[in-house]
Order: sequence, then structure tokens, then C-alpha cells
Amino acid sequence: MGAHTARTVRMPAEWSRHEGCLMAWPYRSELWGDQLAAAQQEYATVARAVAEFEPVLMVTAPGTAADVRPYFTGEPTAHSVEVVELPLDDSWTRDSGPIFVYDESGRRLGADFRFNAWGSKHWPYADDDRLAALVLDRLGVEPLHSGMVLEGGAITVDGEGTLITTEQCLLHPNRNPRFDRAGIEAELARMLGIEKVIWLPYGGLEDTETDGHVDGVAAYIAPGRVVVSLPDDENHPDYARMRANLAVLEATRDARGRKLDIVVLPQTAYGNAHGRSVEVGYLNFYLPNGGCVVPVAGAPQDAEAVEVLAKAMPERKVVPVVTPTLAFGGGGVHCITQQIPSERQ
Amino acid sequence: MGAHTARTVRMPAEWSRHEGCLMAWPYRSELWGDQLAAAQQEYATVARAVAEFEPVLMVTAPGTAADVRPYFTGEPTAHSVEVVELPLDDSWTRDSGPIFVYDESGRRLGADFRFNAWGSKHWPYADDDRLAALVLDRLGVEPLHSGMVLEGGAITVDGEGTLITTEQCLLHPNRNPRFDRAGIEAELARMLGIEKVIWLPYGGLEDTETDGHVDGVAAYIAPGRVVVSLPDDENHPDYARMRANLAVLEATRDARGRKLDIVVLPQTAYGNAHGRSVEVGYLNFYLPNGGCVVPVAGAPQDAEAVEVLAKAMPERKVVPVVTPTLAFGGGGVHCITQQIPSERQ
Repeated sequence: MGAHTARTVRMPAEWSRHEGCLMAWPYRSELWGDQLAAAQQEYATVARAVAEFEPVLMVTAPGTAADVRPYFTGEPTAHSVEVVELPLDDSWTRDSGPIFVYDESGRRLGADFRFNAWGSKHWPYADDDRLAALVLDRLGVEPLHSGMVLEGGAITVDGEGTLITTEQCLLHPNRNPRFDRAGIEAELARMLGIEKVIWLPYGGLEDTETDGHVDGVAAYIAPGRVVVSLPDDENHPDYARMRANLAVLEATRDARGRKLDIVVLPQTAYGNAHGRSVEVGYLNFYLPNGGCVVPVAGAPQDAEAVEVLAKAMPERKVVPVVTPTLAFGGGGVHCITQQIPSERQ
Repeated sequence: MGAHTARTVRMPAEWSRHEGCLMAWPYRSELWGDQLAAAQQEYATVARAVAEFEPVLMVTAPGTAADVRPYFTGEPTAHSVEVVELPLDDSWTRDSGPIFVYDESGRRLGADFRFNAWGSKHWPYADDDRLAALVLDRLGVEPLHSGMVLEGGAITVDGEGTLITTEQCLLHPNRNPRFDRAGIEAELARMLGIEKVIWLPYGGLEDTETDGHVDGVAAYIAPGRVVVSLPDDENHPDYARMRANLAVLEATRDARGRKLDIVVLPQTAYGNAHGRSVEVGYLNFYLPNGGCVVPVAGAPQDAEAVEVLAKAMPERKVVPVVTPTLAFGGGGVHCITQQIPSERQ
């Protein structure tokens, strides 16, 4: 009942030690159409790949756990995939899940931002808006609530006070029409301990589903080190745009005053999702403990992207998973995962 | 009375042959405060500088011509400064004036876009919204009307089908909330003959008066040749942003398929407007016949900017004019001028 005092919190980087990974099972055919079964298969493949590195907590809609568990009863993985039922709309925990932070004593808390289905693009989304709070409650993690809409895919952090995002998404009027740039920065400071926001101008031009999440175009892999996607083809719609992003990153210092070291990743390849050609972005990888699970197209160019990532993160095992159906759904491995950092920092 | 048929028009580049230059006299102390007299003095200085290269048509509010003419009765200039009375609100003809185009027969027409005082920032603006039509009527030039809001300072063209603008301004909801990017491109095609729009992400961050007009950050000086401003100081608010613009220009081809040749101009210097320190941008120059009238700060850095421009345009005489009061008012030489191309192409 005492007065709340302002707390200093900090969002750890994705490469910090995890207790596990939060995912959610796709089940609505309104969202996936005739790709639902293929999507479920790819979610299972990603979950199994992650479970070789860390435990997976797979949320699924009430009454569906019995259908989901069989996907994880075959060849055992190094860590468990625990299937639990919670009310769900969609299946992108990067965006609907909690974002974990530590307070100054090293205790884990959960940031619970509003979720509005990427600017009300899909209905309903009330259950996904509540998902973070329910997950935190289940894990016994104290929530920190925010009235701001924020998806985890819209940010990448170094764990040392710097956050990179895109103006295309975070300043889009369908997210927070009443927050300006300074208001957003203040809320990121309060909720995630961000001291410096690096605003990239662009996400992907054709990434209309998320309005240009940063996790399609740039990702921190270490303090001061950022992977960016850069299309080689002059006719790619993001050819000039990604070079604008690169110029901003090259010209900016982080919260610690460091210049950034940039790793360039071939941006994308085209995969085949049951007869549909889809662009698969390699940048949308996830970093479980000791690993890097990277979405690939099943195309010859995949090898180069895997090699670039392996060279950039020699301490990690890079595991490609062919995910054209996720790309069809508008995302990749990073979009459907959310790290749960260890209980104590 | 016959049916209108679609016409092919094209906006000529600023360096095409001019009949003269349109300006408007500042007279409202609500807009200039205690800087009004200084502003009038600078407008006169700019008009006299331009009149060494081409005639100036100076519009002034009804009943004020007798006050304005004495500014131009001293030392004669090579060409005339004609003072005419028309209803006026403000004094930035680059933005409120007509934009001249040629039709396929080489005849001059006048594009009359809507003007809303940079997103309704100042009131009233009805007279300035009508200024283009009145000027065209006076010159006997047939108007082409558009329902789109567009200021001349928001665009720079090569006269060969390419237009450069900034997203910060042209996509700002205070201009054309019902036009998306494609709608704007279609109207620029119809009204100005534009085949390719190069969208720079940024104007000046602190250019809140125009929301980032391109004529503060980039200017065509020849087909395939663009001058950009690039601050050297890492702490300048546009340090990274102008590098993003540069990256877009370097990565983009124009309507003719050409790569762009970029001339880098030191961005700004600080001048003194009656005790106020103001940032004067060298990029806001105007190209009268055979000349380049460039705003300067009265600072030591001016010489370098003048030299860069003289080297980039050896066929022109570069004339610096000290204009801290224009900078205080939110603009420079380009903002207060508008070329009137020759009657026939």
C-alpha cells in the first residue's frame, strides 16, 4: 500500500543468459488460411531448434494443448517444450509477449506494453493484449505496465542503454498517435532503461504487416555491434532505404559513446510457401543460449547468410530453419520467439 | 467550352532561362516582430542582387507600393525591380507563388497548388493561397489547378522528369492527409511532368517551420548533379540524418537512369540577427540567369561555401548576401524567390 517510487530498470540484450523462450501456437485459420498446417509445422520446427539450446514455453489456446503436444513427443530435444493453455488471438510472442527487464537489484520484472495487433490490422486482439500480463502472472514475475503500444519486434537493444528502432513503425500514427518522438523516448527510458534511441528511418518498404519492424532490417548481436540487411539488387525496393539506415548507424554513437561496428548480411532470398513465392529475411534470427536460429528460404543463397552469421558470432552454433510459411505470415524466427532471461541478472 | 484533354507538361529546372523572378514584400509585424525593418532591408538586398541578373517582380500588399519603391531607387541595378500591389499575407513566394511549367508545344503554363501556410502554422493565409492565381492572371499565363497542397520549397527538379523531395515534409499529415505516397507521385506527374520522385527521408530536424523542406538540404544544380548540405559536427542534430539522405542519393538513379553526382556543401554557419544567434543554411541559394545568390551568415565559414558553389557552377557568378534575418524568419534566399521562366521554352 506504500507509495510507488520510480525504479531504475534495464532491458537485457537478447544474448544475455536465458531461462527459456516464450512462443505461441498458431491456430486460427482466419489468419493462416490454407497455410495453417504448414505454419504449425514450421512453428514446431523452430521450437525444436530452440529447445536444443534452452527450454521453450509454448502457449496455446484453451482446449488445444492435446493437439499441440504430439509435435514435441518424437525425437527428444536437449531441453523441454512445455505446452500451456492461455487465451490467445495470434501467435507472435515477440510482439504480444512481455519484455523482461532487470531492476537495480538484478531482479527480473516484466514490461507489459499495450498490443494493438500492429495498428489494429487483425481482429480480435484483446487476448494478445492481455497475454503479457497472463504470462508474467504464470511465471510469478512482477509486471510494469505501460499505456504505450510497443511490439518487441520494433526494438533491438544492446543491454547497455541503447535501443535501435525505425521511425516507419514507432512513429506510425496507428501505434501511438498521442506520443511524439520525445514522449516515446521518455517511455522507453522509464520502462526499459533506454538512454539513447537510434532512430533508423526505415524498415522494409513492403513490410506492411508490421509497418517496418527493426527486426527485419537491423539487430544488435553484441554491445557496439549491429547486423544490418543490405540488398544487392538495385531494383530491390529497399536498396536505397537500407543504405540510408546504414548511413545513420555509421554516423551515430551509442549511449556509451561508441561508434558501431556493422556486419552486413545479404538481405533476403525467395522461398516457396506451397506454391507462393515469398521473400525470407535472414535478419530475423533468434539468439537462444549458445545458438542462433536463423530463418532461411531453402535457396542457394542461404549458405552465405549462415556463413556471415557464423563468422560474426563464432561462439554460437548457427542453425538454419526453412520457414517460407512464416514469411508468408509476415515474419520469421525472431517474430515468433521471445527470450525469458534468467531470474537473476 | 470543349472537353479538356490531358496535357503533357514539364516543370523546367531552376537553371533554365528566366524572364524574371517573383518576390513578395514582408509587411506584417505579427510575423516579424521587431525584426520587420531588418527583414525588409534583407529582402531589398536580395531583390537588388537578383536584379543584377534578371528582372524582379516584387508583389506588395495593397497600399504599400509607395513605401517599397524607395528601396529600389538608389544605385541602379542591371535589371528592373517592378513593384506591384496584390493581396498578400506573408512573403515567401517560393511556397505561395505559382510553379511554372511548359506544355508539349513549349508554351508556359502556371501550376497553382493549394497553399496552407505550411500546415496552417500562420493565419490568415487565404490571400497567399490565391496569390499564384492572381500572379498568373496578371502575367497572362494560363493556370493549371491542383487540389494538393504543395510548396515550391518542398521540391527540386532536374527538368528531365526527376523530382527530389523529403518524406518529412511531403508526407506530413498537416499537408495532404488524404494523399498517400502514390497519390502524391501521381499528382506531381500530372501537374509537373514528374516521372520519378526521389524521396529523401529528412529535411532539417529543427526546420519545424516548413517541416523539412528539401530546399534546406538538397538542390539540383544540373541534370544528374545535386548539392547536399552535410554538417561536419557530430553533435549537429542533422549529422546522421543528412548522411542518410546522402546514402539515398548515392544509391538512386534518376528518371533517365543516371547515377547522381553529389556536391557536398558545408551546411550552415551561425549569424547574428539583431542579437539572436541564427543558423544560416548555404543550401538555400537561388539561380537567376547566370548567377547564384547564396545566403550567408557573415561568418568566416561563408568563404568556403561560396567557393564550393563557385567551383560547382563555374558558369555562374556566385553572389553572397548576408541574411540572418531571413534565417530568423525560417528561410533564406531560395524561399523568398520564385523563377518565372521565359515565355517559350
